[in-house]
Amino acid sequence: MMKRKEISQESFRGMMKLAVGAAMFAAMAFTSKVDAQQIQVNPTGKGTPKYVFLFIGDGMSYPQIQSSAYYLGKDAAGIVDTVKKSENPKDSPYGENLSFMNFPVAGSAQTYDATSFAPDSASTATSILTGKKTHSSSINVDITKKQKFRTIAEQLRDQKNWKIGVITSVNLNHATPAASYAHQASRKSNYPIGLELVASNFDYFAGGALMEPQDKKNDKESIYSLAQKAGYKVCFTQKDASSLKNGDKALVIAEKLADSDAMNYAQDAQKGEWTLRDYVKKGIEVLDNKKGFFMEIEGGKIDWACHANDARSTIADTVALSDAVKEAIDFYNKHPKETLILVTADHETGGLTIGFAGTDYNLFFNTLKNQKISYAKYDSDFISNYKKNNTSFDDVMKDVTELFGLKVPGSEGSNKNGGLVLTDYEYSRLKDAYAKTMSGDKKRDQREYELYGTYEPLSVTITHILNNKSGIGFTSYSHTGLPVPVFALGAGQNEFGGYYDNTDIYKKMAALTKVVQD
Amino acid sequence: MMKRKEISQESFRGMMKLAVGAAMFAAMAFTSKVDAQQIQVNPTGKGTPKYVFLFIGDGMSYPQIQSSAYYLGKDAAGIVDTVKKSENPKDSPYGENLSFMNFPVAGSAQTYDATSFAPDSASTATSILTGKKTHSSSINVDITKKQKFRTIAEQLRDQKNWKIGVITSVNLNHATPAASYAHQASRKSNYPIGLELVASNFDYFAGGALMEPQDKKNDKESIYSLAQKAGYKVCFTQKDASSLKNGDKALVIAEKLADSDAMNYAQDAQKGEWTLRDYVKKGIEVLDNKKGFFMEIEGGKIDWACHANDARSTIADTVALSDAVKEAIDFYNKHPKETLILVTADHETGGLTIGFAGTDYNLFFNTLKNQKISYAKYDSDFISNYKKNNTSFDDVMKDVTELFGLKVPGSEGSNKNGGLVLTDYEYSRLKDAYAKTMSGDKKRDQREYELYGTYEPLSVTITHILNNKSGIGFTSYSHTGLPVPVFALGAGQNEFGGYYDNTDIYKKMAALTKVVQD
Repeated sequence: MMKRKEISQESFRGMMKLAVGAAMFAAMAFTSKVDAQQIQVNPTGKGTPKYVFLFIGDGMSYPQIQSSAYYLGKDAAGIVDTVKKSENPKDSPYGENLSFMNFPVAGSAQTYDATSFAPDSASTATSILTGKKTHSSSINVDITKKQKFRTIAEQLRDQKNWKIGVITSVNLNHATPAASYAHQASRKSNYPIGLELVASNFDYFAGGALMEPQDKKNDKESIYSLAQKAGYKVCFTQKDASSLKNGDKALVIAEKLADSDAMNYAQDAQKGEWTLRDYVKKGIEVLDNKKGFFMEIEGGKIDWACHANDARSTIADTVALSDAVKEAIDFYNKHPKETLILVTADHETGGLTIGFAGTDYNLFFNTLKNQKISYAKYDSDFISNYKKNNTSFDDVMKDVTELFGLKVPGSEGSNKNGGLVLTDYEYSRLKDAYAKTMSGDKKRDQREYELYGTYEPLSVTITHILNNKSGIGFTSYSHTGLPVPVFALGAGQNEFGGYYDNTDIYKKMAALTKVVQD
Repeated sequence: MMKRKEISQESFRGMMKLAVGAAMFAAMAFTSKVDAQQIQVNPTGKGTPKYVFLFIGDGMSYPQIQSSAYYLGKDAAGIVDTVKKSENPKDSPYGENLSFMNFPVAGSAQTYDATSFAPDSASTATSILTGKKTHSSSINVDITKKQKFRTIAEQLRDQKNWKIGVITSVNLNHATPAASYAHQASRKSNYPIGLELVASNFDYFAGGALMEPQDKKNDKESIYSLAQKAGYKVCFTQKDASSLKNGDKALVIAEKLADSDAMNYAQDAQKGEWTLRDYVKKGIEVLDNKKGFFMEIEGGKIDWACHANDARSTIADTVALSDAVKEAIDFYNKHPKETLILVTADHETGGLTIGFAGTDYNLFFNTLKNQKISYAKYDSDFISNYKKNNTSFDDVMKDVTELFGLKVPGSEGSNKNGGLVLTDYEYSRLKDAYAKTMSGDKKRDQREYELYGTYEPLSVTITHILNNKSGIGFTSYSHTGLPVPVFALGAGQNEFGGYYDNTDIYKKMAALTKVVQD
């Protein structure tokens, strides 16, 4: 999954220092408080929306949301008696609501697909965008793989002349964004999905780079070139993206790409780097028109972080999605009777829990704040070099202390109650993982698979231990069957209360916008 | 926690067979389909309720609810292509909604208390019943432990002359039911809580037996005797409970008691044994009057099963709560404009997830159906005898196969994809756990604590393995910080949408019933 860069042994130490410094800056920037935002009251909760924002936090269910809110709390160490100071739970020192947690309506949707109770992004996004169930891995086709389903984005384009935008922090032909415009038996058909992107004639695409833009053998005309011929302004720099104007048709690729050509994890983002919020802001600018627009915005790296059981990066990307929603709220505040904002998810990923056997009734979110870099950046910028240089475990531990806070047994501090000193048991687990990583052995017996999945044993064990010391657990490297929340604000919000099926999200959107299934 | 019975070695085999037979019957009875129930539509969602049902599933958050619904599905093995057969998700072969999942409103409440993000039942029930935060372990007193909070039950009794009922599947002086009527710095003050039960003058108590009814030293007058003197009809048999009539003041103790004098796990209930539903039905009969009534009903054994990471028993008690809610729905259908039903929880327990590393994207709920007995009944009826008789591991495995379905490696069948044959790795874990259980050693190092908590290593390892083979995981033996759902039906239902604080549940109930905080 990771793109490993070629780095000479000489430049390694220097790069490492740069990475640490940048990571520290990113951590500081991220922990600054999110400013408060007023939300206009929609007096009836009813109405006919003509501006629809559909935010999908990939892998983001209740555990991801609530842990992020608690992480942002003024006293994330817990164990305090501050109730007296604040009788208003909104001011609670225990947490700070994510933007969409303040929406007036919050329902739940169950997510099973035609294959599984733990479905994938292809089938679930199909359900949300078309109201139909299908197989895991299929995008907008039925289980015979013959019938194509039309999406609400296509229907709004054709039946209402709305403009359409698609934004994601991962690749623009990944399953969730593709579910707006593509129809493929397999989500892995990257090039055909790219062709459908161009053919969609949608107005604004922004996010990570396309996968296989010249197909698997690199022998086809590039999707970027085809997009340009089809009238898209194709931007690869923030400067070019900045110059886009209302009415432009644009395909915007993030200037800085990270693992698998996705955008950076929010945890690793540098100063001045565009985040999901910037792409939503630009999207509103480009798409705004009197007939209406529909925008699908995916926080895709929440899912990737959860797959890897990296709680700190999960939280950073969940907060990035919350920040992106704020742009939509600003727009809603200007058009409260005509705007509908939905924030939902396709499925939960990782089996994240806000509790762990080792910490019992305590949670220590401040402990998690010691992580300064995503597992993926650690893999690409550090572990790849450990392998090249045959770095000793003692030297590795120096990085682990600097980047994740974890200290060797006997160091100053506590190994209990969120303390960062490793117990002998944890230290030996880390040493085993180091040995497995350095061996390069990709084989996993049952025990090893439960411990490491298909990830680098060293990095996944570091985040497991840091998670557990913070009081956080994961049970899986895959998706799970938890229902997902559906937050709603604006025209038609009242339709989204209750506990229903993810196909109902489409049905409610279609009824509100008065499109007919074709 | 367990009450171990004295059983002679001679009678052991016979008893075991009886227990297996009974457990098999219970399993069959439980898996029979729940009959469909119509819910009258409340046209406005507004109104002033005079009959309020507050159901609290202790430890029951989204994971418990959704896994129970999927468990009840017609094809709980998953991996099927049945979407074509049913275009209506309500008829989905994948699951059957619990009764309250069909309610029109479903919000979420965050649960932190003055001590922790992973709070306990005392503090959270205080928040729900009084609108105030307090310390874990405290019931209806502030964090200085000096100020007492009045509960909505007391306010409705005093300000509105409503009748009050309190029902639980665990002990009637346990934290959650006590939060209706008691005010104690410590939830462990069982006898003082019992005294407050009698002094409350509430009209109907039903559930498990009182803890320490003659105080810790057994030297005080029994709470039962005091209740009788205060005018309560005290019933210890179903026959006596049956004869209770409208207007009676009653304290009903379940005829059959199980671990810690609570009611049986629903998983272990015998034919004819009263369930939570029967106590709600009788409660309505006793309390119904023209002024109004308030009933708090706790599904307390959901929490106990989750503490022990027993997924099968968790599901059985979650379904038992859903069935109890059906009695309230029947009442609502007769008085839709005057009845409000709330179904919520105090916190999540166990960090239950609907996914596991070993099964990836698959879930096998049918595998879980092989468990025929709760961990607690296995502890009391089997493990206690293994210890007495020094039963061999091979003999233990025969019970494990009969009661939980798990088979020794090499047996007929599969050890993958939900198959019940143990892998060598699982078999060795079970053997280690058996040795630890037989040793009687209560000490746990860090690794052992993560594996077993404070439970019997053998039984908790059996349920862990069966859970994992079914695709289910737990991360904790304690409560977690997940928010809880709030389902609402009836007069005032619309107030309960959105994502809010558990103290708001009280505030919304108080506003709707027009009581003032005193």
